[in-house]
Amino acid sequence: MILNVLNKIDEPKDLKGLCSNDLKVLADEIREILIKKVSTTGGHFGPNLGMVEATIALHYVFNSPIDKIVYDVSHQSYTHKILTGRKNAFINPDKYNSVTGYTSPQESEHDFFTIGHTSTSVSLACGLAKARDLKGGNENIIAVIGDGSLSGGQAYEGLNNAAASGKNIIIVVNDNDMSIAENHGGLYQNLALLRNTNGKSENNFFKALGFDYHYIKDGNNIESLIKTFSKVKDTNHPVVVHMHTIKGKGYKDSEENKEAFHWVMPFDLETKEPRFKSTGESYSEVAGEFLSQKARKDSSIVAITAATPGPVGLGSFRHEFKDQFIDVGIAEEHAIALASGIASQGGKPVASFVSSFIQRTYDQLSQDLAINNNPALIMVYWGGITDSDVTHLGLFDIPLISNIPNIVYLAPTNKEEYIAMMEWGIEQDRHPVAIRVPNMEVVSTGVKVEPNFDNLNTYEKVKEGSEVAIIGLGSFYHLGNRVQEMLKESTGINATLINPRFISGIDEKLLTELLDNHRLVVTLEDGILDGGFGEKISRFYGDKDMKVLNFGASKEFTDSVSLKELYERYHLTEELIISDIKDALK
Amino acid sequence: MILNVLNKIDEPKDLKGLCSNDLKVLADEIREILIKKVSTTGGHFGPNLGMVEATIALHYVFNSPIDKIVYDVSHQSYTHKILTGRKNAFINPDKYNSVTGYTSPQESEHDFFTIGHTSTSVSLACGLAKARDLKGGNENIIAVIGDGSLSGGQAYEGLNNAAASGKNIIIVVNDNDMSIAENHGGLYQNLALLRNTNGKSENNFFKALGFDYHYIKDGNNIESLIKTFSKVKDTNHPVVVHMHTIKGKGYKDSEENKEAFHWVMPFDLETKEPRFKSTGESYSEVAGEFLSQKARKDSSIVAITAATPGPVGLGSFRHEFKDQFIDVGIAEEHAIALASGIASQGGKPVASFVSSFIQRTYDQLSQDLAINNNPALIMVYWGGITDSDVTHLGLFDIPLISNIPNIVYLAPTNKEEYIAMMEWGIEQDRHPVAIRVPNMEVVSTGVKVEPNFDNLNTYEKVKEGSEVAIIGLGSFYHLGNRVQEMLKESTGINATLINPRFISGIDEKLLTELLDNHRLVVTLEDGILDGGFGEKISRFYGDKDMKVLNFGASKEFTDSVSLKELYERYHLTEELIISDIKDALK
Repeated sequence: MILNVLNKIDEPKDLKGLCSNDLKVLADEIREILIKKVSTTGGHFGPNLGMVEATIALHYVFNSPIDKIVYDVSHQSYTHKILTGRKNAFINPDKYNSVTGYTSPQESEHDFFTIGHTSTSVSLACGLAKARDLKGGNENIIAVIGDGSLSGGQAYEGLNNAAASGKNIIIVVNDNDMSIAENHGGLYQNLALLRNTNGKSENNFFKALGFDYHYIKDGNNIESLIKTFSKVKDTNHPVVVHMHTIKGKGYKDSEENKEAFHWVMPFDLETKEPRFKSTGESYSEVAGEFLSQKARKDSSIVAITAATPGPVGLGSFRHEFKDQFIDVGIAEEHAIALASGIASQGGKPVASFVSSFIQRTYDQLSQDLAINNNPALIMVYWGGITDSDVTHLGLFDIPLISNIPNIVYLAPTNKEEYIAMMEWGIEQDRHPVAIRVPNMEVVSTGVKVEPNFDNLNTYEKVKEGSEVAIIGLGSFYHLGNRVQEMLKESTGINATLINPRFISGIDEKLLTELLDNHRLVVTLEDGILDGGFGEKISRFYGDKDMKVLNFGASKEFTDSVSLKELYERYHLTEELIISDIKDALK
Repeated sequence: MILNVLNKIDEPKDLKGLCSNDLKVLADEIREILIKKVSTTGGHFGPNLGMVEATIALHYVFNSPIDKIVYDVSHQSYTHKILTGRKNAFINPDKYNSVTGYTSPQESEHDFFTIGHTSTSVSLACGLAKARDLKGGNENIIAVIGDGSLSGGQAYEGLNNAAASGKNIIIVVNDNDMSIAENHGGLYQNLALLRNTNGKSENNFFKALGFDYHYIKDGNNIESLIKTFSKVKDTNHPVVVHMHTIKGKGYKDSEENKEAFHWVMPFDLETKEPRFKSTGESYSEVAGEFLSQKARKDSSIVAITAATPGPVGLGSFRHEFKDQFIDVGIAEEHAIALASGIASQGGKPVASFVSSFIQRTYDQLSQDLAINNNPALIMVYWGGITDSDVTHLGLFDIPLISNIPNIVYLAPTNKEEYIAMMEWGIEQDRHPVAIRVPNMEVVSTGVKVEPNFDNLNTYEKVKEGSEVAIIGLGSFYHLGNRVQEMLKESTGINATLINPRFISGIDEKLLTELLDNHRLVVTLEDGILDGGFGEKISRFYGDKDMKVLNFGASKEFTDSVSLKELYERYHLTEELIISDIKDALK
């Protein structure tokens, strides 16, 4: 690959002298290395291809890092990284993993925040602007936010405040007419109207909020972009630049199938085949199939997603059940209150989230749902210890959800139990129920489980033993089972093995019975220990003659650390657990 | 008081036959009993006086409970309660406490949700509408939302989705040009424009979102209201009715001082004097005074509130420091991200919240603030066990905040420690810091405390003893001290007394030292036990020879239960704690 122009660019100021044609060549070169890199490593594909020209234009016009650009979600910041000293991470395959998938102040002075959740950029930019004003500075503050991100409430809170600030702040709305999936909401009719009128309609969401407004018809045209950005540079008041870009621009498949190419697993550019084949069915597919079967027979079933139908198994469901499917956009707060409202009238809502994103709706879980005690079912995917980016950890849903009164939080250990819990969660009418979907390959016993969990907080004793009792929660039940077997082999101790099933409460009767012939209770949970499940067991036994060991993650943010390393760090291997058990029994 | 018309009204249908004049008399009668009742008991004053006519008109036009009205925050629902079978609770002083201050499905079939937090009504109404559509119903679904509540992100998420539903949903925007305090944000310029143009401006936030739009110039004129509500009744598409009302209407003082009369303590209607005198200074006043002193010398100090300047001690601050004060409206998410942004550039933001409302911004605390590790200071007021309405409990901030990595959550026990913690929190630059303001009268030792908490998670041993160690967190330190004294008196045990200072971590060194000559550790915390402080101590001692007793609130929602009853229920009296200690030592 010959990178005639990019070779000359090590920092944004190197752009300033380039002629118009060189800038276009630069865009082509960047697009080429982006396609090669992201197809190799996986990552955000469409969002980055769409933003190549706009990022070049931003850095051409503004003076980063004096002028400060904040990227919403920052999943479109790869060109920014390339232009701000990190191009080798995109050119040299050996360096592909030397940068994260999001902006990171640790990587560059051109990055101001570690960002990975949606709708935060305008608020953060308001902070930068206020800090500037307190110091009497005059640099430009720019937030780049996609149309999809505008569905989140925080984006609106930010816009509402930014508009009233009366000072320089430039909101670049990157409108590619797509969220992760298609957009939903009244705002999108207005964005379409603005696109169709070349920004001229007086009916204008941004003007209504008080912004000065500029429209760029072709947001992949560098000259247009430079012209408008130059016009708003050093503005003394809040401005929105609304630009229409093409998501996935420059790669035929991603232009044509925007949702599939929002984020990709590694794939072969020649054959278009994925580099890693997925193995067997997933718990999300099991849920999708189960919900489809239910919905065919029962028109009161409604599946709700906050812009992530794919990861939560609703890929097919949404096409088959138009009236029984709601994608609210990236609006988790609305999703929970909506579900509560539906459930209050006898509807059967099933609202599905990724663990990291259900964090965005704690107050609604507590107020709209739990206080009202409405029987909605909430599904929580991807909860657990992972090697993910720091912004997408699944560690915190247990403390978040299980400590809210009234919500029954369940942890299935296999497919049959999972289906039974969904069935019960949907059909019972007394509690808000949440299910923590095991974040692992599907385990099937072939033995049907009765969909009856009416006796709250009753744990299941799977193996009756003595001396040691192992309580393995959800996906870590299987780890508990292996520890039980290896402990027996290595020490002769026949430990009791318990599947607690309920995350949100303890089985006092069973725990009391254990006092008779056990000395040690071991808890295993796939999440942060602080505020979690095991600590409740420790509290219960606090004044009793029982030792307790809690295993789970420490309270820390980890960033793309391998599972192997994390499991060793947290003593979550069979060997380390058994070693700790032996120490505790001494 | 002669209630000629109200005497005839026991349910909404009794309104239907009334002539226009009777409806006006009814409004006067309701206003009279509202003023008498709320001045006697305290409660939401201005919001209810402003909504008298509109509520009468809603019930005149629509058929509750078939047609369903959802009130945002529901702090303006008193007239609704009066018209739906609960008038005696407003007429008869003996019955004043027989209804809650918010809507409650337990009270009436005309109430659909227990509501007390802001900005949720549109989302909940969307749920009612969807449930209706699934059943093939055709009733009207109405959300009543104040202009202040429109600053919250969830309200926007709801509006964005409601607008796109294509079905009957009626959003009544009660625009009294006030939040709790004055409004802030670009939206309010648009509302003003709409008021000034009699709803005719094409620049219209609601139309931009896709709503059909109707304006009512005088929202306290029953005839106008009835006319417009009748027009939109049975609409087949989403509608906004924007009405201009006068907050506090009909009582001179509340019309003139809208903020002070938003929510009132009991006061004498004749003398205008409060019925209960406040005693001495409060921790919020101490903070306000401290921050003012700091801000006078340091222009990088910024105080941030989400629409509650009064309760968080910023009543004077906001008038003295225009540029160093930001009220973001009821937009807690924005407030936290804003603070993080300011702190990232060396500004010194102090963002203050009420415990129950900081729940609304968990994800921003985690993502925008903690992951970015920016040194903002967060103040948390009203955290603790209270006799409040179920929607305003202060029980959950410890599990919510203390389990987020990187945030240092501090619990001062007296004024001097409180000031030292604020000073340190503002001046240090390594951690996000939160302070849990003691929810009690100010305790002053007169002894200055060094503002240095750099050694994280170091507890303070205040009394050195043996056998029993009492760890009293924050406001419950004083309870711990009394227990220590009474225990000594009654048993001779000289317990160790510890002020942990840090909520968010444990002092392993000190806890390990206690193993030498203690048998029992007692933790006391003013909040829910589940996921809280004490459980971390229990976990630490799980595999060691130490008994632990955790005292705090059980996991339950309580609704206006007296402190006395709650303390007894949770064994939080000196006597009950000592009795439990004796049992544990047996």
